[in-house]
Amino acid sequence: MAMIDPYGSRLYKDYEKVMKDFGLEQLPDLPEENRLMRRGVVFASRDLKPVVKAMEERKPFYVLTGIMPTSERIHLGNKMVVENVAYFQKHGAQTYILVADLEAATARGVSLEEAKKRAMDFHIPSYIALGLDPKKTTFYFQSENSNVINFAYEAAKKITLNEFKAVYGSADPGRIMAAVTQVGDILFPQFEERMPGVIPVGIDQDPHIRLTRDVVNRMKDRKFFSPAAIYNKFTPSLDGELKMSKSRPHTCIELPDDPKKVCKKIMRALTGGRESVEVQRKKGGIPEDCMIFELYKQHLIEDDKELQKIHDDCKAGKLLCGEDKQHCCELMERYMKKLKKDIEAARKNVDKLNFIRF
Amino acid sequence: MAMIDPYGSRLYKDYEKVMKDFGLEQLPDLPEENRLMRRGVVFASRDLKPVVKAMEERKPFYVLTGIMPTSERIHLGNKMVVENVAYFQKHGAQTYILVADLEAATARGVSLEEAKKRAMDFHIPSYIALGLDPKKTTFYFQSENSNVINFAYEAAKKITLNEFKAVYGSADPGRIMAAVTQVGDILFPQFEERMPGVIPVGIDQDPHIRLTRDVVNRMKDRKFFSPAAIYNKFTPSLDGELKMSKSRPHTCIELPDDPKKVCKKIMRALTGGRESVEVQRKKGGIPEDCMIFELYKQHLIEDDKELQKIHDDCKAGKLLCGEDKQHCCELMERYMKKLKKDIEAARKNVDKLNFIRF
Repeated sequence: MAMIDPYGSRLYKDYEKVMKDFGLEQLPDLPEENRLMRRGVVFASRDLKPVVKAMEERKPFYVLTGIMPTSERIHLGNKMVVENVAYFQKHGAQTYILVADLEAATARGVSLEEAKKRAMDFHIPSYIALGLDPKKTTFYFQSENSNVINFAYEAAKKITLNEFKAVYGSADPGRIMAAVTQVGDILFPQFEERMPGVIPVGIDQDPHIRLTRDVVNRMKDRKFFSPAAIYNKFTPSLDGELKMSKSRPHTCIELPDDPKKVCKKIMRALTGGRESVEVQRKKGGIPEDCMIFELYKQHLIEDDKELQKIHDDCKAGKLLCGEDKQHCCELMERYMKKLKKDIEAARKNVDKLNFIRF
Repeated sequence: MAMIDPYGSRLYKDYEKVMKDFGLEQLPDLPEENRLMRRGVVFASRDLKPVVKAMEERKPFYVLTGIMPTSERIHLGNKMVVENVAYFQKHGAQTYILVADLEAATARGVSLEEAKKRAMDFHIPSYIALGLDPKKTTFYFQSENSNVINFAYEAAKKITLNEFKAVYGSADPGRIMAAVTQVGDILFPQFEERMPGVIPVGIDQDPHIRLTRDVVNRMKDRKFFSPAAIYNKFTPSLDGELKMSKSRPHTCIELPDDPKKVCKKIMRALTGGRESVEVQRKKGGIPEDCMIFELYKQHLIEDDKELQKIHDDCKAGKLLCGEDKQHCCELMERYMKKLKKDIEAARKNVDKLNFIRF
């Protein structure tokens, strides 16, 4: 079985194989699917039925994600997760955002104070700018939530070192501590009241979901619901080589990013263009291989018809890469400006958020 | 190199070998040594010089131990540790007692609430009855001390799984969490102000000391003092076979214990007596092999001259085992009655203790 390393940066092109290897399911039909769901960017799910049932019956359920306040930017992968959180929030989910300041402090050497400051100044306002309803969202800092941490100790007793290695591929003390704390975070909304919950993730985060499900199975008498998950594909790097990552900045778009710089990167992106304009006019381009089209599909174009038209025009040889990149730049520029404004607006109200204090 | 397992119950008879294997030092000269130090029951130390220097120069230093509030009794090993803590307290040490409720909850399945209740009702009053000055002691609950827990996460990042295995002989997630939390506890008094500190332990607890020293070495820029330690020998089981342990109750004395029951156990204890009264009167007894003498030496007789007289009378064949056991019973009965009274008195003032609340 292939190993998914949530800490690595390998790109999974063969999502069907991943689904089979990890026992993931197709995404079931959901009401008013968001852009990512409609377009197969959310490509799989795990145990989503209890969540769908709760949605239909308007019973309590929750959605949860974390903020890792290490850097001063976020990336497009975070954006997709937040959009998926916002989807479930709009459909009635109790919404929890935890700030993984403890993990940031220990794994990345950012002090707890600095991690909190960054989260309040940037990450939380960004998550709100990306679509979270702040009035309906509950926030907490991992380092303050002794309930989660105490549960992490309990969870640690439920798994052996070999089981841990089987899920994560390796085990070292720091990773173990971080992982069992995530187990506590994922189950935290159920500490008071048992209910189904869904964690939107990239596939690289699946080990945390599986570990949590293993721990739940070992605590049958506690009657937790095993967490459900939905999985989004990665945004590829602009050269199409790997998962987009800050470690290769010229192929990476961050949020927010300077519109001018982004434009330069877009101009050098891999497209599905042909060897010459003449050939492309005759044979058409290949949007399936085009990173610009990928940006439209995953992030920039909401309207399916508009996206389809670009797809068709490219295939027909009517839309050439230069013009298309220019269009992408304009959309990106508009997006970045709006995002920056929205972040600033959200920052002003950050002291009014629902923080659980312990 | 022999492995000392702090969770096991093997008895170490060959303390010289243990010292050599683990790189322990002789106990240096200390002012006004207590009964355990004078009699070699405290048989070794590690890196005690900075502590001795701080004592001499009246500079800040600390002594620390933990309470594991699992059972409703403590044992003679705890008694020795508390007596050693009290020794350093009397000589100027800042004194910290942590209640390992988190470890109790996770390792032994006692709920945090129950663990706290037991600590307040029994363990803390007992520690005070055993000689701690409550006015000069700072207490905290592990589960509430987020500073310690956050530090535990950091410590976990500083050690590899193989290093952990080398110190503890094995590694599983629960043990790792408990161990790195103890590292946090041991260094906690230095979080605000760096100073030397000493941890009185049984030799089985040495892995925690070594792990803490390893972590300190990995954090050179933080300038923690490596913890010093002093080591007491085990109290042997009454049949002289093993370390005294609740798992073999007829050879074990707990605190407090019913005086009548204790007396019965004492009557069956291993002594250094001869095959007949006649032989013993002629050749004398062997106090070195006698568990009754061990109880006197470690626990029941404070006055060195009184102890020496018993030793000499036994050797001379003047004191026979029956009479001696009767004497031991009387001392034990008196001790248990006083201890019970002292625990009850301490319990009444338990709400006036210096608890750090977080």
